[in-house]
Amino acid sequence: INDGSSLESLQVVADPSLEKRDLTFGSAVEVQGKLVKSPHRMQNMELQAETIRVVGPCDIWSFPLKMKERHPLEYVRQFPHLRCRSNTLGALLRIRSEATAGIHSFFQDNGYVHIHTPIITSNDCEGAGELFQIGESAEKTHFFSVPAFLTVSGQLHLEVMAGAFTHVFTFGPTFRAENSQSRRHLAEFYMVEAELSFTESLQDIMQVMEDLFKTVTSTVLSKCPHDVELFHKYIAPAQKGRLEQILKHKFMIISYSEAVEILKQAPQTFTFKPEWGCDLQTEHEKYLVKHCGEVPVFVVNYPYDLKPFYMRDNEDGPQHTVAAVDLLVPGVGELCGGSLREERLPFLKSRLQRYLDLRKFGSVPHGGFGMGFERYLQYILGVDNIKDVIPFPRFSHSCLL
Amino acid sequence: INDGSSLESLQVVADPSLEKRDLTFGSAVEVQGKLVKSPHRMQNMELQAETIRVVGPCDIWSFPLKMKERHPLEYVRQFPHLRCRSNTLGALLRIRSEATAGIHSFFQDNGYVHIHTPIITSNDCEGAGELFQIGESAEKTHFFSVPAFLTVSGQLHLEVMAGAFTHVFTFGPTFRAENSQSRRHLAEFYMVEAELSFTESLQDIMQVMEDLFKTVTSTVLSKCPHDVELFHKYIAPAQKGRLEQILKHKFMIISYSEAVEILKQAPQTFTFKPEWGCDLQTEHEKYLVKHCGEVPVFVVNYPYDLKPFYMRDNEDGPQHTVAAVDLLVPGVGELCGGSLREERLPFLKSRLQRYLDLRKFGSVPHGGFGMGFERYLQYILGVDNIKDVIPFPRFSHSCLL
Repeated sequence: INDGSSLESLQVVADPSLEKRDLTFGSAVEVQGKLVKSPHRMQNMELQAETIRVVGPCDIWSFPLKMKERHPLEYVRQFPHLRCRSNTLGALLRIRSEATAGIHSFFQDNGYVHIHTPIITSNDCEGAGELFQIGESAEKTHFFSVPAFLTVSGQLHLEVMAGAFTHVFTFGPTFRAENSQSRRHLAEFYMVEAELSFTESLQDIMQVMEDLFKTVTSTVLSKCPHDVELFHKYIAPAQKGRLEQILKHKFMIISYSEAVEILKQAPQTFTFKPEWGCDLQTEHEKYLVKHCGEVPVFVVNYPYDLKPFYMRDNEDGPQHTVAAVDLLVPGVGELCGGSLREERLPFLKSRLQRYLDLRKFGSVPHGGFGMGFERYLQYILGVDNIKDVIPFPRFSHSCLL
Repeated sequence: INDGSSLESLQVVADPSLEKRDLTFGSAVEVQGKLVKSPHRMQNMELQAETIRVVGPCDIWSFPLKMKERHPLEYVRQFPHLRCRSNTLGALLRIRSEATAGIHSFFQDNGYVHIHTPIITSNDCEGAGELFQIGESAEKTHFFSVPAFLTVSGQLHLEVMAGAFTHVFTFGPTFRAENSQSRRHLAEFYMVEAELSFTESLQDIMQVMEDLFKTVTSTVLSKCPHDVELFHKYIAPAQKGRLEQILKHKFMIISYSEAVEILKQAPQTFTFKPEWGCDLQTEHEKYLVKHCGEVPVFVVNYPYDLKPFYMRDNEDGPQHTVAAVDLLVPGVGELCGGSLREERLPFLKSRLQRYLDLRKFGSVPHGGFGMGFERYLQYILGVDNIKDVIPFPRFSHSCLL
């Protein structure tokens, strides 16, 4: 029997007379008996049953999970209401729960104020990305009196809060209406975002990103060793032991300009030719991470023209950059993105009035970042498809349950 | 100067020569100097400034917050991007953050697995309540291939998970497209929901509700005593000291039938005449709470015909009831609602196929509840309007920022 608290089951030893016809795989049982030291080497304890009651029988013929079978992730994905009972998804969900608690603790322990940034917003953070519009159906024309969307980022709302509290964070769902069937994209996904006032340089932001990653990952490794082992044994054998190594070393830092030079000198040819001023593509990110030894790599100082208005102008030249940073990790690509924010009013003129107000009334140098929570789980566990690290995946043409 | 970590400011003592023209209320400053014991009785320490730098000036003429003024909550509500800098909202947001951490810790410490139940769902939990539909705008017809909505409750998804883990919880945003301008309703609000397998009776559910309330409230009282004091001093003087009393006693329990009897014998007349089989109205809830001495009261065993299909049939009669419970609190009304779920397949026939599957494959007696997080904050702090206990309130005709 297994109560879902770990991969480990408790062996119940019962006299044949206690056997029930409906005592099948998948059924829910209540067993009373004595917990004793087991004579077998495979288990420490076992339960000598005195009574067995089948609380909820399970029809094994129609139950899609089979005993002692390792079902492929694609197979169990068809059963969003039952796949949590498989070993792999059970382990994943326990890890996800511990990682969630670890993220809250990390920020809490470091004096951050948690903010519930809104899900519905009248504001499109980056002007980029496909938005889900809401509250405009026939009978509810303009519920909010203005066009309203599902949030793509809590950043602007966190910036508001960074004017009142020194450090703030949010951890909630964000949305993209992208018609993508990629193994890295979902329509609904979770993002950790933080904003820090009185930053001095990008170093301040990178330090928090790295500390967050390492603290949460250490927590997961120590709280769910067997659950993590399952992934590193059966799903991503190449990950075994790598994570522990990575936690011991400082993450690498290269500039965008250095990254472009590395790509230009690469022996391989890319579909997108690397060129200063162009966005790094997935193939480029992969190569950079490999080039650096399959470890997490910060890429800093991106071209001014590539990045949104709120990122801080480095006032350099002739290759004009902003103080932006991306954290690239093996197998996943971009895990975190952040920047110093432009705190100087003249640099922001002709922008949003409210955004300007924040600069007008006691502006401070600040910066922040976001980390995709599903991508984080994909990376540490080596899970190929993002649909397997979220309880109920939503993507184009799919919204089961 | 104040860094947002508490209501307490640090007094900076400076020579007039350090005075800057732009050193105004609301500006962001960097002060270097010596932290010394203060000669004044009002403060323990003070900072003897050696240098003062105005990092971000603040135009006091247009800044809507004024020094040493206690602005009404209605006034600051107009400035969603600046109100967090007022004492009251600052205190509220610190309390909200501690309560959030307290909720996660409570469940974590009691062995619950945290689940991110989906925001977008193809499933209308109760068939009740107005739904926000999404992904059906002109250019994105049927993004999900099926009608999709913003969630009204994570209950069904938690029930799925309660089949894999013994205890699960979620804490996230939920939505109602109600055209209400009530001080108790928002279009977007936060709900804590829990689901417990192997329940024996409603008592199991009530115990968790009561423990959750008391544990989180104790945490808030001990972590933010000054912030809570601000509310109990200026916003809701009647609350002062009451909460500490309530934490010491068991919550009261009455049945729905008893509640109706109490209402029938009330000396006052109600707009809605109390009658067995009719829903309790706000006026009824208020009276019941007053009748019980302005303390939290559980009302249990509601009429079968009033409640949704998934609540467990008590198989009683002639007044046929289900094992449902509401927790009523002073000033707010319904804070939590929960029930035992109908785990018996025959009672659920002709319902949702997936819901039936959960009963078919290893069904167990279980139950759960939800607690409105904003209503919780309204109650413990005595805040009249729900719009003042959430960072960015959304309601009909309003979606600022």
